[in-house]
Amino acid sequence: MRQTEGPEKVKAMKKGIVLVSGGLDSATVLAMARDLGFEPCALTFRYGQRHMAEIEAAAAVCKGAGVAHRVVLDIDLGVFGGSALTDTAIDVPKDRSNGDIGEGIPVTYVPARNTVFLSYALAWAEVLGASDLFIGVNAMDYSGYPDCRPEFIKAFQAMANLATKAGVEGPGPLTVHTPLMELTKAGIIKKGVALGVDYANTLSCYDPSPDGAHCGRCDACLLRKKGFLEAGFKDPARYAAFTSTSSS
Amino acid sequence: MRQTEGPEKVKAMKKGIVLVSGGLDSATVLAMARDLGFEPCALTFRYGQRHMAEIEAAAAVCKGAGVAHRVVLDIDLGVFGGSALTDTAIDVPKDRSNGDIGEGIPVTYVPARNTVFLSYALAWAEVLGASDLFIGVNAMDYSGYPDCRPEFIKAFQAMANLATKAGVEGPGPLTVHTPLMELTKAGIIKKGVALGVDYANTLSCYDPSPDGAHCGRCDACLLRKKGFLEAGFKDPARYAAFTSTSSS
Repeated sequence: MRQTEGPEKVKAMKKGIVLVSGGLDSATVLAMARDLGFEPCALTFRYGQRHMAEIEAAAAVCKGAGVAHRVVLDIDLGVFGGSALTDTAIDVPKDRSNGDIGEGIPVTYVPARNTVFLSYALAWAEVLGASDLFIGVNAMDYSGYPDCRPEFIKAFQAMANLATKAGVEGPGPLTVHTPLMELTKAGIIKKGVALGVDYANTLSCYDPSPDGAHCGRCDACLLRKKGFLEAGFKDPARYAAFTSTSSS
Repeated sequence: MRQTEGPEKVKAMKKGIVLVSGGLDSATVLAMARDLGFEPCALTFRYGQRHMAEIEAAAAVCKGAGVAHRVVLDIDLGVFGGSALTDTAIDVPKDRSNGDIGEGIPVTYVPARNTVFLSYALAWAEVLGASDLFIGVNAMDYSGYPDCRPEFIKAFQAMANLATKAGVEGPGPLTVHTPLMELTKAGIIKKGVALGVDYANTLSCYDPSPDGAHCGRCDACLLRKKGFLEAGFKDPARYAAFTSTSSS
């Protein structure tokens, strides 16, 4: 038997909870989960972000993928403050060089965000009888968040199997899938394009304009532009006018 | 040097996040955290419970303890369903014998509740620069929830130290304190009485009457009544009229 590349395809339509933020990473994960034979149950959070454009992007991504299940929860991580993404008193950094991106933990880090997100996903999984969670974290080409590292995911999975009825009485064991972990941004984009993801629906920017255009200058925009450039595809994102000349 | 019984008292007023539900366990934990020299930051959740009486009890407990910090978050675990505590379609079991309580995982289990609660506590701790979380879980005299076991707490703590900026850059390591873990309900009550906890402020019942009286018949009420009986103190809780004759 020929060994297939990547995880073996699952034949049965098992439910899989997929965290969908509206960004290009999670849009790709959604397509990958379905390609693996899962029935994706998409979960999006409204968590005190400065902008609601990413919620609209998440809705567009789910609609584009034809995914019916979708729950948006109003979780108030903004009440704690401490991040440029939820606290208007902290500025989003702009125009950082590639060398600076990934140095240390940036102010756009939202305290314990992935822990909270995965905990909700775990709750939903347990109610649905699902034992698979999907999250688009990435260790290669990311912005230095501690809760995107493989050792965090491994520890969360171990905890999840002790936390839940599913872990104790079945249908466990719970698995946290991170299909993007070892991919570069360009690799993610290539994978998504091959699976038919429409990246025009996605929003990567930390600081979009009121009409939902990418700023083109925050870390997330810089990584996105670099990714499309390296993948050799045109980025279908809308960029704010003053940076449009610098986008690929 | 003489070995003190229990954890060594902390001299500096370090902040400690304390999960306060309004029940007698967390009211005791709040007093114990302060007795250990922590400045308690109480955190209460409104999470789709059938009754709001326990939120009022949490407020009374914090007021009674003179704790200023308190954040109530409207987290919507009820949207997932699956528990008698958040889903009106599932009945709260009544009049179970001591032998039945603790057999298997009951319908009052809320999926991944403590995981979600501790994740929020972790987020708040990180913003405050705190590295101590307190939760009133108990392995001796409890209702069979998987997320109350010491192995779950240990796994959560390991995950928390990988999840956060605090764990990666300091002031870590994060500690999840479970001062009630090895105490019986009677032992908890004795400890709390010694620390001046006013248990009249607390609500244990899974199914209180609209005016906030305990039903006296659910697992939580049965455990509470047994605890006060064994501790040798009068339970100051209000019980619904038809069960008042059976309360101690």
